[in-house]
Amino acid sequence: MARIGFIGLGIMGGPMAANLVKAGFDVAGYNRSQAKVQRFAEAGGTPATSVADAVRDRDIIITCLPDSPDVEDMALGEDGVFAHAREGALFIDMSTIRPATARKIAEAGRAAGFGVLDAPISGGERGAVEATLSIMVGGEAADVEKARPVFEAMGKTIVHVGPAGAGQTVKAANQLICAVNIQAVAEAIVFLEAHEVDPATAINALSGGLAGSAVLERRSASMVGRDFQPGFRAKLHHKDLGILTSAARDAGVTIPLGAGAAQLMSALVAQGHGGLDNTALLKLVEELSGR
Amino acid sequence: MARIGFIGLGIMGGPMAANLVKAGFDVAGYNRSQAKVQRFAEAGGTPATSVADAVRDRDIIITCLPDSPDVEDMALGEDGVFAHAREGALFIDMSTIRPATARKIAEAGRAAGFGVLDAPISGGERGAVEATLSIMVGGEAADVEKARPVFEAMGKTIVHVGPAGAGQTVKAANQLICAVNIQAVAEAIVFLEAHEVDPATAINALSGGLAGSAVLERRSASMVGRDFQPGFRAKLHHKDLGILTSAARDAGVTIPLGAGAAQLMSALVAQGHGGLDNTALLKLVEELSGR
Amino acid sequence: MARIGFIGLGIMGGPMAANLVKAGFDVAGYNRSQAKVQRFAEAGGTPATSVADAVRDRDIIITCLPDSPDVEDMALGEDGVFAHAREGALFIDMSTIRPATARKIAEAGRAAGFGVLDAPISGGERGAVEATLSIMVGGEAADVEKARPVFEAMGKTIVHVGPAGAGQTVKAANQLICAVNIQAVAEAIVFLEAHEVDPATAINALSGGLAGSAVLERRSASMVGRDFQPGFRAKLHHKDLGILTSAARDAGVTIPLGAGAAQLMSALVAQGHGGLDNTALLKLVEELSGR
Amino acid sequence: MARIGFIGLGIMGGPMAANLVKAGFDVAGYNRSQAKVQRFAEAGGTPATSVADAVRDRDIIITCLPDSPDVEDMALGEDGVFAHAREGALFIDMSTIRPATARKIAEAGRAAGFGVLDAPISGGERGAVEATLSIMVGGEAADVEKARPVFEAMGKTIVHVGPAGAGQTVKAANQLICAVNIQAVAEAIVFLEAHEVDPATAINALSGGLAGSAVLERRSASMVGRDFQPGFRAKLHHKDLGILTSAARDAGVTIPLGAGAAQLMSALVAQGHGGLDNTALLKLVEELSGR
Repeated sequence: MARIGFIGLGIMGGPMAANLVKAGFDVAGYNRSQAKVQRFAEAGGTPATSVADAVRDRDIIITCLPDSPDVEDMALGEDGVFAHAREGALFIDMSTIRPATARKIAEAGRAAGFGVLDAPISGGERGAVEATLSIMVGGEAADVEKARPVFEAMGKTIVHVGPAGAGQTVKAANQLICAVNIQAVAEAIVFLEAHEVDPATAINALSGGLAGSAVLERRSASMVGRDFQPGFRAKLHHKDLGILTSAARDAGVTIPLGAGAAQLMSALVAQGHGGLDNTALLKLVEELSGR
Repeated sequence: MARIGFIGLGIMGGPMAANLVKAGFDVAGYNRSQAKVQRFAEAGGTPATSVADAVRDRDIIITCLPDSPDVEDMALGEDGVFAHAREGALFIDMSTIRPATARKIAEAGRAAGFGVLDAPISGGERGAVEATLSIMVGGEAADVEKARPVFEAMGKTIVHVGPAGAGQTVKAANQLICAVNIQAVAEAIVFLEAHEVDPATAINALSGGLAGSAVLERRSASMVGRDFQPGFRAKLHHKDLGILTSAARDAGVTIPLGAGAAQLMSALVAQGHGGLDNTALLKLVEELSGR
Repeated sequence: MARIGFIGLGIMGGPMAANLVKAGFDVAGYNRSQAKVQRFAEAGGTPATSVADAVRDRDIIITCLPDSPDVEDMALGEDGVFAHAREGALFIDMSTIRPATARKIAEAGRAAGFGVLDAPISGGERGAVEATLSIMVGGEAADVEKARPVFEAMGKTIVHVGPAGAGQTVKAANQLICAVNIQAVAEAIVFLEAHEVDPATAINALSGGLAGSAVLERRSASMVGRDFQPGFRAKLHHKDLGILTSAARDAGVTIPLGAGAAQLMSALVAQGHGGLDNTALLKLVEELSGR
Repeated sequence: MARIGFIGLGIMGGPMAANLVKAGFDVAGYNRSQAKVQRFAEAGGTPATSVADAVRDRDIIITCLPDSPDVEDMALGEDGVFAHAREGALFIDMSTIRPATARKIAEAGRAAGFGVLDAPISGGERGAVEATLSIMVGGEAADVEKARPVFEAMGKTIVHVGPAGAGQTVKAANQLICAVNIQAVAEAIVFLEAHEVDPATAINALSGGLAGSAVLERRSASMVGRDFQPGFRAKLHHKDLGILTSAARDAGVTIPLGAGAAQLMSALVAQGHGGLDNTALLKLVEELSGR
C-alpha cells in the first residue's frame, strides 16, 4: 500500500486525510497550524513537524491548500515538496488553483523526475467527511491509475479528464455552472415571491423539466427558507471565480454570465457575507429588488 | 365526459388536441389556417369553421396561441370566446403569455360567469406529441379539479401553483432558469474546448455534482456536437424572455443574469438564428470568443 | 402668432407653457389637476376646463404627459385631441414615449388631416424653467418650420432629427448614453475611493481627456458629495429606460450596457430611491461594494 | 538640467523620449530592440546598449513598458534599474500597470534610497508625438516637483493625484470610463441606425446635453464612418481593463458596467480585432444585432 504524505489539514484536507487513514494507508500529515496536526494524530495519522518530515520517503504526496501561490510555493519552493521528495514520487495537488499554475507545476515536477496530477474536488465539507467527493483529475494515465486507490478512499466519482491542468480547467467550469445556476434559482425565487406565488410549489412544478438541476433539487429549499449556513462558503466560491475569470481571459473566452455571476459573488463577499453559503446570492437579489 | 373546444392547432396545440381526441374527448378544433383544421379532422377531431362554432355549447374551451395580444383578443374580443361560450364554461389558456394579461382575462371571465385557468406548458414539441408535458396551472382549485382529466390526457406533471396568473409566473421563472442554465453550459463548453479539454469527458465528471442539471444531461451532447435542430426554437424562447423581463420590471425585481440571457437570446434571433434550438446560444459564445 | 393649446402642466410642462406665454403666445392650458391650471392662469395663461376647451380653434396643440398610454389616449381617444382640434392643426407631443407609439400617432393624425411632430426634450426641470431645453424633433420638415418659433421660446438647441418617431428614438439613445455614463462615473468614484484616491482630484485629471463628459463635468461633484437632490428623478429615467429596452428589442438591437444600466436603475427605484436624482446609482455601487 | 535615462522606446516611449531631447534634456535611451535605439539616436538622443548603461549616473530614470511584470523586472530585477542607478535618483514609471505593483515598486525603491513616481499617461500616440499627454502622477509631492519640468516636456495636463499607486488607480478609472462611454456610443449608433435615424444628425442633437462626452465629440464621426484605424488599439485597452478588473477585485469594488465592457473588449480581441481602434466595439454591437 502506498505511503502518503498529506499537506494541508483544513476543513477539506482534514477529513480527507482521515479517510485515507481509515482506509488503511500510512499517512504522514502536516499543517502550518500544529493544532490541526494534533487532531489528525488523534484520528490515527502520523504527525509531521515539517514539510520535509511529511514528504521524505513517501510514495505519494498530496496537497490541499487555499490558493495558487500557496501551492506553487509548496511544490516549487526552496523548502517545498520537490526539494524533499524521493525520486519517482507522485505529487497530487487537490487544491483549486489556476490551470496555468497546475501546468507549470506539472512541467517542473516531471523535469525533476516526479509524477504530477492536478485533482481538484467538489462535493463540499460533507463530501470530504463522507468520502463521496467528485475528483477531476488532470495528468498522465499511468499516474492516474497509480493514484486511483487513494482517490477511491476519498471520493465516489473519479474522472480522468485530460492532461496536466485539465482537472483545474474542469473545476473552473464546474464553479462557473454552479454560480450561474445558483443565481438563476435566486432570481427565480425572488421573482416568484414578488408575484405572490409560493416558491416551494413552483419549484416542485419546475424540477422535473428542463429547468431541473442539482441546485434546484438540493439547495432551493434552504434558499426559500433563507438558511445560508455553509455548505460552501461564498468567499471560497469568490476565490474560485477569480481563477475562472483569469483562465477565461487567458484563453480569450468570453463568459458574459460567468463574469456577471463573479461580480455578484464579489459583491456578496464585499458586503461581509463571505462566510455564508454561496446560495446567499439570494440576499443580493432581494436587496436589488428592494425586498 | 367534458365536451371541449380547442383553438390554436399549431406545433404544440395540434398534437395536444389530437391527444384529447385519442383519450376519448369530443373535441371541436379551430385554427385560422383551415389546413390545420383539416389535419385535425383527419386525426378524428370535429372541424370548426369559426371561433363561435368551436366554442358554442362546449364545457371547456382551450386556447394555445402565439402571444399575449392573440390570447387577449381571442378571450375578450367582440367575436371571442367569452362572447360565444355558454354560461359556466371553463376557459383554459395554455399559451405562454404575460402574467398580467392572464390575470386580466381571469378577472373579466369570472365577472362574466366563466371559470378561467392559465395553464402554460413545458416539454417541447416532443412532450406535446407524447402527452408528457408539464402543466403549470393558475386559478381556483375547483376549476383545476374539473380540468384535471383533460390535463392528464396531455401531460404528465400537473401542478396547481396558485391563483390566476400563477401558472404564467411559474412559466416565466422556468424560462429564466432554462435560458441561464443553457448559457452557463454553453460558456463552460467553449471554455473547456479553448483549454483543450474534451467537453464530453468533463461533462461526465460534472454531471453528478452540484453543476448537474437537465440541460447538462439532456442537451449538452447535442451542444458539443453543434446539432441545433429544434427542440425549442430560439425565437420562442426570445418571446418568452420578453414576457419575463416585462413581468420582472412590473414587480420591481432585478434579474441581472436573466436580463443578460435575454440580451443574448435576442442577439441570436437578430442574427437570423431564431429557427434554431435555444441551445444555439453556444454559437454566440463561440463567436464572442473568436472561435 | 400661433394660438397654442397646452396639455400637461406638470414639473416640465408647467414652466414650458409659462415660457410660451412670456414669449407672447396666446396659450390655453389644461391639466387634469385644476390646481396646476390655476397656477398657469396666474402666470398669464388662459385656463381650460377640458381637453376640448384647450384644443378647439388652436393652431398648435402641445402635450407633455407621463407615458406612452397617456399620450396615445390623449391623441387618439374619444375625447382626445384629434377629436376636437380644428382641421389642419399641428399636434406636437413633447413627452418621452415609445417611438412606435409616436409613429402610430403620427400616422393616425396625418390620416385625419393634422400635422404631427414628436419633440421630446432633455435638459431637466432647470432647462424647462430657463428655456434652455434641447428639443429632438421627428416629423416633416414643413411642420418643423411651422413649430420653430414655438420651440425657440422653450429651448436652446432644436434639431430636426428625422421623420415621425425619430425624435423619440434619439431621446431613447440620449437616455441610454446618460444612464451608462452616469454609472461609469459612479463605478469610477467608488473604485477611486476604495483605493484611497481623492475622487475630486482624480476627476480633475480625467476630465480633459477621452474620459471627459458632461456627466463628469456637471454631476460628479454632487456625486462625490452624495448630494442626490433631483435634477432628473431616477424613476423617470427608469421609465425612459423601459422605452429604450422595448425599442431596442423591437429593432433587434442588442445593448448589453444599456440593458445593464436599465437593471441597475430599476433596482434603485425598487429600493425606494426613485425620487432621488438618477446619479444616485452611486448608492447602488457602494452597496454592492460593501461600503 | 536633469540628466535622464529612458527605457522603452516604443510607440509611446519613442516620441516621448524624443520630446525630452527636443526640450534640451540629456537623455540616454535604451530598448531591447536596438533598431529603436538607433532611431532615437537619429533624433538626437544618446544611445544606450544596456539597462546599466542607460541608468548609471542619471538623475531621473523613466520607464515606458508594456505590462506589470515587465516593469517589476526592470525596476527590481538583478540587472534592473535599482541595481544600477546612483543613490538618490528618481525613478518614474510611465507604463500602465497594476496599482499594487506600483506600490510594491515604490516601497522597494524608497527602501533602497530612491525617489519613485508612478505616472501613467493618456492621450494616445498623437498625444505622445505632440507632447499633449495627460499625466496622472502618484508619489510624494517633492518628487513630483522635481519631475515637473520633465513632465511638461511630454504632456499638457499634469496632475498629482495622490501617494504611490494613485497614478495607476486614476489611469484604471480612466480606462473604465473610456471603455464604457465608447460602448454606450456604439450601442446608441447601432440603435439609431436600426431605427433609420441618421446618427450624425442625432449626435449633433445629443452632444450639447448630458449625453455629451469626449467620445461623442471626438470619436463618433469615425465610428459612424466605420473607420477603426487606431488611435488606441483594442488590445492595449484590453490589457488595461485586465488591470482594472484585478484592482477592483482587490479592493472589493463591484463594477458591473466596467466588467461588462471588459468582457466585450476581450471578445473584440479574441475575434482578431486587437489591432483596431478601441471604438471597434461598434463592430461587436452590430454583430450581436445581426447587422
